[in-house]
Amino acid sequence: MTFNERLKVLSEQKKSFLSIGLDVDMDRIPGFLLDFEAPILEFNKSIIHATSDVTVAYKLNTAFYEAYSVQGWRSLKKTLDLIPDSVIKIADGKRGDVAHSSQKYRDAFFKELSFDAVTVNPYMGYDAVAPFLEDKTKGVFVLCLTSNESAGDFQFFSDGKKYLFEKVAEKAVQWNKNGNCGLVVGATVPEHLKKIREIAPNLPVLIPGVGAQGGDLETSVKNAKDSENGGFLINSSRGILYRSDDFDFAKRSRAAAEKLRNDINSYRV
Amino acid sequence: MTFNERLKVLSEQKKSFLSIGLDVDMDRIPGFLLDFEAPILEFNKSIIHATSDVTVAYKLNTAFYEAYSVQGWRSLKKTLDLIPDSVIKIADGKRGDVAHSSQKYRDAFFKELSFDAVTVNPYMGYDAVAPFLEDKTKGVFVLCLTSNESAGDFQFFSDGKKYLFEKVAEKAVQWNKNGNCGLVVGATVPEHLKKIREIAPNLPVLIPGVGAQGGDLETSVKNAKDSENGGFLINSSRGILYRSDDFDFAKRSRAAAEKLRNDINSYRV
Repeated sequence: MTFNERLKVLSEQKKSFLSIGLDVDMDRIPGFLLDFEAPILEFNKSIIHATSDVTVAYKLNTAFYEAYSVQGWRSLKKTLDLIPDSVIKIADGKRGDVAHSSQKYRDAFFKELSFDAVTVNPYMGYDAVAPFLEDKTKGVFVLCLTSNESAGDFQFFSDGKKYLFEKVAEKAVQWNKNGNCGLVVGATVPEHLKKIREIAPNLPVLIPGVGAQGGDLETSVKNAKDSENGGFLINSSRGILYRSDDFDFAKRSRAAAEKLRNDINSYRV
Repeated sequence: MTFNERLKVLSEQKKSFLSIGLDVDMDRIPGFLLDFEAPILEFNKSIIHATSDVTVAYKLNTAFYEAYSVQGWRSLKKTLDLIPDSVIKIADGKRGDVAHSSQKYRDAFFKELSFDAVTVNPYMGYDAVAPFLEDKTKGVFVLCLTSNESAGDFQFFSDGKKYLFEKVAEKAVQWNKNGNCGLVVGATVPEHLKKIREIAPNLPVLIPGVGAQGGDLETSVKNAKDSENGGFLINSSRGILYRSDDFDFAKRSRAAAEKLRNDINSYRV
């Protein structure tokens, strides 16, 4: 089964199109966790335990782990061990380098660590992405149109016919030979998501930016789904993680996750 | 002193425009080092000891360390401790993310680790780069035109007047408010380097791709230098690191580094 097939099957089985971003900030987790040796790992353990049946994926932004250096990488590795096989593990690292370096990143995420998918940056072109695409069971979400304010600096650069982000979407369709390529499109630009879906009708779309970044959930869901009414993931991080400073934090995160899952499903129809 | 000023002063003092890439592959270091607990660290120790007086910078590609996970990050951290203050430490990680994630990467490289500079990917625009630029003593080399075969996939996307990489160079000039922004331009495209130098006459240019990647050293040097005949770094990794499988490996790396430094200086005149 290819990665993209697996993603669809999981979404169908779980009736969920939710991805939870484990972008965990030491300054925002409940204070009592700071007494533990590895506070972030402890936090993740509770969140995973409380939410793994409602989410299709966990997306771990590597920045939040690298910020704590060796200790952070250890927490990253141990967090992955806690995630059941029924949930897809996405390394949100936005890497991309000359082929022999991208091969090393691929080894880092797919061999040394047990990630199922990565996000990659397309700026350096095909050979920077190719090493990640070799194994059809591993997914590759290519940055297409991002959710940040300055996304337009270069992604809206145009040759008069199309924007750069549309060219990236076109290329990703070509790169999807093994059924494992997808796109990252921010929830802050749902009108463009529609155009991207026309260019890439079958690629799964990972959509960050709902909640804290102000993305439009309803339009995003309506424009994200493919002809089979699937093929997308809505990611929320801060909107789910930091719901309480007290012992009930994981329970409240679950409630937030369940609500978002249900909202997504209601807009899907 | 800003980062860009410091780079110039160091180049002047050392009469060198060389950067050595410590992109160390466990499969390519002398076999006897594999008996050590941390072979890559042991290798780096010898290379740094043998070359720190002839090089202006060490560039560490994070892919080669992440490939060994927690142990790799430990070697990365310990390698930095071995580099004297007279050599600039560049984290070649090509990161870039929404602002609150880029802030974490900045903390990872500039606070948790003692890097002096980073490479960043411009695809997400200004706010993905801005956190790295805040401290004027820390350098930021923005990917502009890279040395890999597929660089043209997107970097040569054109609006009819200019290529994407030229737009990136223009933006980098605007971003250089603190005197600490530079560009990455591959040695494989020296004719475009000339154009980039016209757009960005004062930004330091980091030039990988000589040696193994087949870049043209003479034209690169001639087109890279600014009006003061400085402001650039030629990086070599494989061409310097793997010169012998025997106990003399570091001595031979030094000879290769010295030769490249001298070649660069001869083309500078």
